[in-house]
Amino acid sequence: MEFELGCVSSGGAQCVELADKHAADFAVTADRFDRDNAFPTDNWAALQRSGFLAATVPVDLGGLGLRSIHDLVVAISRLARGDGSTAIGAAMHLTAFWYLARLRTSPSWPVAAPPARHLDLMLRACARRRAIACVAISERGTPLGNPATTAEPAGSGYRISGRKAFCTNSPAATLFLSTVRLGADEVGFAVVPRTTPGLRVLENWDALGVRASGSGDVVFDGCQVAQEMVVPAGPVGALPPAILPLTMVGALVLASAFLGMSEQAQDLLTQALSRPRSVRPAARALVGENEIDIATSRAVLARTAVLLDERLGAGTPDLPAVELAGLMREVQCANMAAKRAAITTVDRCLTASGGGGYLSSNPMSRLYRDVRAGPFMQPFSALDAFEYIGSVRLGLDRDPGRPNGERELP
Amino acid sequence: MEFELGCVSSGGAQCVELADKHAADFAVTADRFDRDNAFPTDNWAALQRSGFLAATVPVDLGGLGLRSIHDLVVAISRLARGDGSTAIGAAMHLTAFWYLARLRTSPSWPVAAPPARHLDLMLRACARRRAIACVAISERGTPLGNPATTAEPAGSGYRISGRKAFCTNSPAATLFLSTVRLGADEVGFAVVPRTTPGLRVLENWDALGVRASGSGDVVFDGCQVAQEMVVPAGPVGALPPAILPLTMVGALVLASAFLGMSEQAQDLLTQALSRPRSVRPAARALVGENEIDIATSRAVLARTAVLLDERLGAGTPDLPAVELAGLMREVQCANMAAKRAAITTVDRCLTASGGGGYLSSNPMSRLYRDVRAGPFMQPFSALDAFEYIGSVRLGLDRDPGRPNGERELP
Amino acid sequence: MEFELGCVSSGGAQCVELADKHAADFAVTADRFDRDNAFPTDNWAALQRSGFLAATVPVDLGGLGLRSIHDLVVAISRLARGDGSTAIGAAMHLTAFWYLARLRTSPSWPVAAPPARHLDLMLRACARRRAIACVAISERGTPLGNPATTAEPAGSGYRISGRKAFCTNSPAATLFLSTVRLGADEVGFAVVPRTTPGLRVLENWDALGVRASGSGDVVFDGCQVAQEMVVPAGPVGALPPAILPLTMVGALVLASAFLGMSEQAQDLLTQALSRPRSVRPAARALVGENEIDIATSRAVLARTAVLLDERLGAGTPDLPAVELAGLMREVQCANMAAKRAAITTVDRCLTASGGGGYLSSNPMSRLYRDVRAGPFMQPFSALDAFEYIGSVRLGLDRDPGRPNGERELP
Amino acid sequence: MEFELGCVSSGGAQCVELADKHAADFAVTADRFDRDNAFPTDNWAALQRSGFLAATVPVDLGGLGLRSIHDLVVAISRLARGDGSTAIGAAMHLTAFWYLARLRTSPSWPVAAPPARHLDLMLRACARRRAIACVAISERGTPLGNPATTAEPAGSGYRISGRKAFCTNSPAATLFLSTVRLGADEVGFAVVPRTTPGLRVLENWDALGVRASGSGDVVFDGCQVAQEMVVPAGPVGALPPAILPLTMVGALVLASAFLGMSEQAQDLLTQALSRPRSVRPAARALVGENEIDIATSRAVLARTAVLLDERLGAGTPDLPAVELAGLMREVQCANMAAKRAAITTVDRCLTASGGGGYLSSNPMSRLYRDVRAGPFMQPFSALDAFEYIGSVRLGLDRDPGRPNGERELP
Repeated sequence: MEFELGCVSSGGAQCVELADKHAADFAVTADRFDRDNAFPTDNWAALQRSGFLAATVPVDLGGLGLRSIHDLVVAISRLARGDGSTAIGAAMHLTAFWYLARLRTSPSWPVAAPPARHLDLMLRACARRRAIACVAISERGTPLGNPATTAEPAGSGYRISGRKAFCTNSPAATLFLSTVRLGADEVGFAVVPRTTPGLRVLENWDALGVRASGSGDVVFDGCQVAQEMVVPAGPVGALPPAILPLTMVGALVLASAFLGMSEQAQDLLTQALSRPRSVRPAARALVGENEIDIATSRAVLARTAVLLDERLGAGTPDLPAVELAGLMREVQCANMAAKRAAITTVDRCLTASGGGGYLSSNPMSRLYRDVRAGPFMQPFSALDAFEYIGSVRLGLDRDPGRPNGERELP
Repeated sequence: MEFELGCVSSGGAQCVELADKHAADFAVTADRFDRDNAFPTDNWAALQRSGFLAATVPVDLGGLGLRSIHDLVVAISRLARGDGSTAIGAAMHLTAFWYLARLRTSPSWPVAAPPARHLDLMLRACARRRAIACVAISERGTPLGNPATTAEPAGSGYRISGRKAFCTNSPAATLFLSTVRLGADEVGFAVVPRTTPGLRVLENWDALGVRASGSGDVVFDGCQVAQEMVVPAGPVGALPPAILPLTMVGALVLASAFLGMSEQAQDLLTQALSRPRSVRPAARALVGENEIDIATSRAVLARTAVLLDERLGAGTPDLPAVELAGLMREVQCANMAAKRAAITTVDRCLTASGGGGYLSSNPMSRLYRDVRAGPFMQPFSALDAFEYIGSVRLGLDRDPGRPNGERELP
Repeated sequence: MEFELGCVSSGGAQCVELADKHAADFAVTADRFDRDNAFPTDNWAALQRSGFLAATVPVDLGGLGLRSIHDLVVAISRLARGDGSTAIGAAMHLTAFWYLARLRTSPSWPVAAPPARHLDLMLRACARRRAIACVAISERGTPLGNPATTAEPAGSGYRISGRKAFCTNSPAATLFLSTVRLGADEVGFAVVPRTTPGLRVLENWDALGVRASGSGDVVFDGCQVAQEMVVPAGPVGALPPAILPLTMVGALVLASAFLGMSEQAQDLLTQALSRPRSVRPAARALVGENEIDIATSRAVLARTAVLLDERLGAGTPDLPAVELAGLMREVQCANMAAKRAAITTVDRCLTASGGGGYLSSNPMSRLYRDVRAGPFMQPFSALDAFEYIGSVRLGLDRDPGRPNGERELP
Repeated sequence: MEFELGCVSSGGAQCVELADKHAADFAVTADRFDRDNAFPTDNWAALQRSGFLAATVPVDLGGLGLRSIHDLVVAISRLARGDGSTAIGAAMHLTAFWYLARLRTSPSWPVAAPPARHLDLMLRACARRRAIACVAISERGTPLGNPATTAEPAGSGYRISGRKAFCTNSPAATLFLSTVRLGADEVGFAVVPRTTPGLRVLENWDALGVRASGSGDVVFDGCQVAQEMVVPAGPVGALPPAILPLTMVGALVLASAFLGMSEQAQDLLTQALSRPRSVRPAARALVGENEIDIATSRAVLARTAVLLDERLGAGTPDLPAVELAGLMREVQCANMAAKRAAITTVDRCLTASGGGGYLSSNPMSRLYRDVRAGPFMQPFSALDAFEYIGSVRLGLDRDPGRPNGERELP
């Protein structure tokens, strides 16, 4: 695709090459997994084998050493062209390990970090194709900053009890990154291995789209974990500032999956319209409108990723809260822009398909459903994004974690 | 629902009361039929039993005697609140019998009409709960005014061969209203009973939405029909002017199904938000935007229906082509306005649901898919409607059948 | 214009005929008054002479006897095709006298009404071409339901002091209908004759559009008025329920002026495009989109006007507050729909003009500015309409006067 | 402004600093020039004095040496925050001299170039504060690629006759860059000094917005120019490929002026809302929506400018036509995205202002009119952009000059 996003680092180039290859393979089976509402275990095995899942693990620990958020954005957008469900899961996994790797190089970062020894263990496990991360922080009926899942001191560690929802990627995951309540007033960040007795992955995801993302519930039924795997992250109420960098990067990389889906829809449409007959002016105009949306999404994701690389990359100093708020505002802008543009683009593709895209046999009908998942995703849902962005711009709200604290899941 | 559309005729009142009752029943099973991609045979049996399907049959022939297009619009919008798939099928069936009844009272109407005796036979069959109509005029790869299905003289009648697509309601239908090619230059209008040897209903409908509408293919494999059941309708190329009144009324009544779906979505949302907690300003504003769209859709459907009643109702004189074009322009305006408003409204409902509507267990996720079918429907697709309306307004195009002539199905 | 709104009463027919005639005349000078930022005194003199300004005065008092809100909507939309500034002023004047006439027939209406004798005096003065009303209720910095203008008992009547803003029509007005504060807790409704010493019309209106509407400030500098001309209307804080019917009718009739402006723009565009050369598909499509917006605006204004006629017309019973809230919600829906559609329509006209409409010599450039005034108008501004409508729909707010109470002017 | 565009070159930094300074000064008088429909001679004198107008002249010839299109975009966006009218004129002037400087370094560029000696003369004149360029290529009633203005051989040079329209900046210009017809089949590129006998600048610009841009007509009444100042550029019909690089760069830099206007409107709104009282959620959300539009406009302008720098900058090889088409498509995407976002942003600012922005005394009312000029500007008007972009994407049109050839001015 002309003028598509390209990477800026060598680790990125390798990762993007793998993403392109995987996308071509995954595109073949995406409709089947969608129809069967099945988790694409084969896709995840392939991503493991190729080393793609170790992309953000440092080279010295056995990974591909991708550190650029910009290039992570590019890689996920490419992968999403093949299978959006797999891409959003991969986005979360790669961001989680990007974060663990980032913690390792900057122990002074004001973040909730497990001990360096544990970081290395997890990163090495990922490099050895033995770790897949699942971000299990959402719950039904509680805001992000106020989880009902508890971690209570027990023995030499903690006992974790609760139920998480929207755990994308959970059927394949080996490590669950969760938020827990520590005592009355504190929120903690916990890593729970899948093998922990009491942990159950329900595989109950059944939704309009991203049906192969495995975003079901995970139950912690008195899971005993080591003390080092639960880290205090901040007071109850708002999204813990300590995990804001993870949140921002995660949101932006996730948004790029929606760009990839819209690029794929536009490509399918272009192929469908290039049969040897005339294309009506109205259809051409829709293709043109889509190009505008795709061009702007690419640009705003890339520019924002560079802003994050400059401010959150290895070696950058800590940011004060007011700057984190400004940065989160900018991430939200890119996030909403890309997700809305993706929805609009696929909708136009459907219209320009003249009805063909409405049939189940056409991947467009899946893309129409998949792409609609974007605006619900944490922590920047369409219901609070605009007002939050405006409040930060107006100087009325400088707490970067507030929207998450207020947000409730269905 | 406050300020909902109400009927203006006594035949309408009876019909709307039935529609409300059926809608309440059908709402219970709509999600199941959707999930199973199954045709709702039970719904159609119930519509038969209650007499709803005989709504537009004259009272003296045993029907409910509904003649007002306005009230037909109201009834279908109500039925659609329960199950959109069933409602669009019922819209087509009722419009077809409205048309046959209208032909009967006005033999001078410039339309393609079977002999009065046959009209009465069909209308009486409908009143006796023995007839369900299917409008089988679309084909893959040919425009509406240029069908590839042929009717060739054979014996004392015609032999019909071809394949029709998007035959909503075909699994339940007993009469197939089709367009055929008569010789090299003429288009004909044919009625083919289901019992005709060679007629096959494929039940192969599988699409993004309106999955229970049974809109699959119908094959005519040398179907022998009586001479009176094939009527010349006009020259090949444009939609036969003789069936324009049917087309207009059909389009408007069909559009009202989409209003009903959006009213249903808004109602579901309102119930979901009325739990005893605060509703965020952004969610309130979305509900408010929806009210505006619903109010305008109701108004434009009702006003246009009254315009049709005044100009196409029993006893009205023939309209010259230029007035038919103006009227069709107005129908297209109402049609596009209502269908687009319905899509936008359900989309806002999904957003305001905070994600809950995205789950398969929530009827909203079905409505989101169902309502997207509107803009593809013949003869006013979103790809040609705007330019056509503008051309008529500019006096550049006064042929009311042109858009259909050009239209191609996927 | 095909399918334009037509009237339903004989008083309406006469009034609409006059409106059409005046519109043709006013169209000639509209650009000049705009350029000179001048009040069109000549227009108002002509409206007086023809009897148009007495349209809503009962026949027995010498007026045209127009009672239908629907037909008032039609008449104002027609007048606005000639000069939007004059039309919005005429809308306010006619609504004010419609209200006074309505009060006269229903003394039991729960409204703030001057004594019947005074009503008759004012209505007769209007019939004798001696009265023009100005609705002077807005102030800078205070909400509608909490005016800073005071009426203090003085002598046998009241002394009124304060400053009103956005007093459309003030240069020509002879009667100023105002809101005042009565003591600490009450809002009153006052009628102040122009000849009252201390009353000054500042003629300081200078804005982006509706430049000839004379919507400047009016100062009450200790104006002494008779006791009967100040009537208690309700507690401070919300828009007095007693004047809600006036508010609703006024808002809807005013909104119809914006429909008229958009019809005029579409007409100008159609004429410009009908030169003997080809019109590009994109321009045709824009004309088509406009037809849709115009059709829906006409329909929603007409339907809502009929709803008001049925519920607020002469002889109708009092409405409880919850029904007034529902009705106001519906008026707000029509109001926002029509005003937004008008803005969008004129914007498309500008685009389709290919740049010609951007020149000052083209009336389109004035219409683009005039039509933008709609969303600011009291009591339904674009900043609170959506949330208010949604709140009423959700049953969260049943106070029909709330939005006005909160609203602040710039 | 946080996250505003910043420059990437040292020449850029100097130029942007000047732009900021000038913008602060020009903001003071922008409303006055607008009201008086006067050309801001003082602004142009100030831009001359400071050296800003010599920004794109090479350092060795006395200019600031700005070569980066990206930084030109930044500089013009900053200047436009003060006075949009002056900024669009400066955009055209600076692009013209950027182009002349670019020609000088790459004589092999497939462009219509005056001899190197003349290039140097013009560039030096600009550095000496003696040259201001006006791009005079539009005419009423002819497409860009088919001018009616003729250049006929006369004496040792050419005699130029015709009338150009929309000559932004003409009151201050000393050099007029024009298109002419050479014989029957060829289009030429001419440079006409202001002092040429027969040249008349009409100063007749009077439009809705950018009223201080001096975009009136210029008449060539038998203007005799030297042979070297008229260069063949290509066959009649399409925009001469030889000037495509100028066209692309010009369009992108011009578009950035509209970004600047929207940034200014958002800033004015933010200041207005930061008074010590609560800002309603609806207003916050509008500010948030604006931030998204501003963020995407910045990103897409910057990314596209970098694409142009990489492909059209000094030292880059010639591009084949198909790549020029792709590049022009991308420029059109950025162009339409930025201009539309600017219109939407200022419109939201007006709404969020609560009516205050509608008054003539508020700069917002000027910005609302100024920003609407964008979509009419050559060669990418809103009427052909979408279809053209789509056609290029679909491979149906690879002629980068076509849209211009078809475009007609009002």
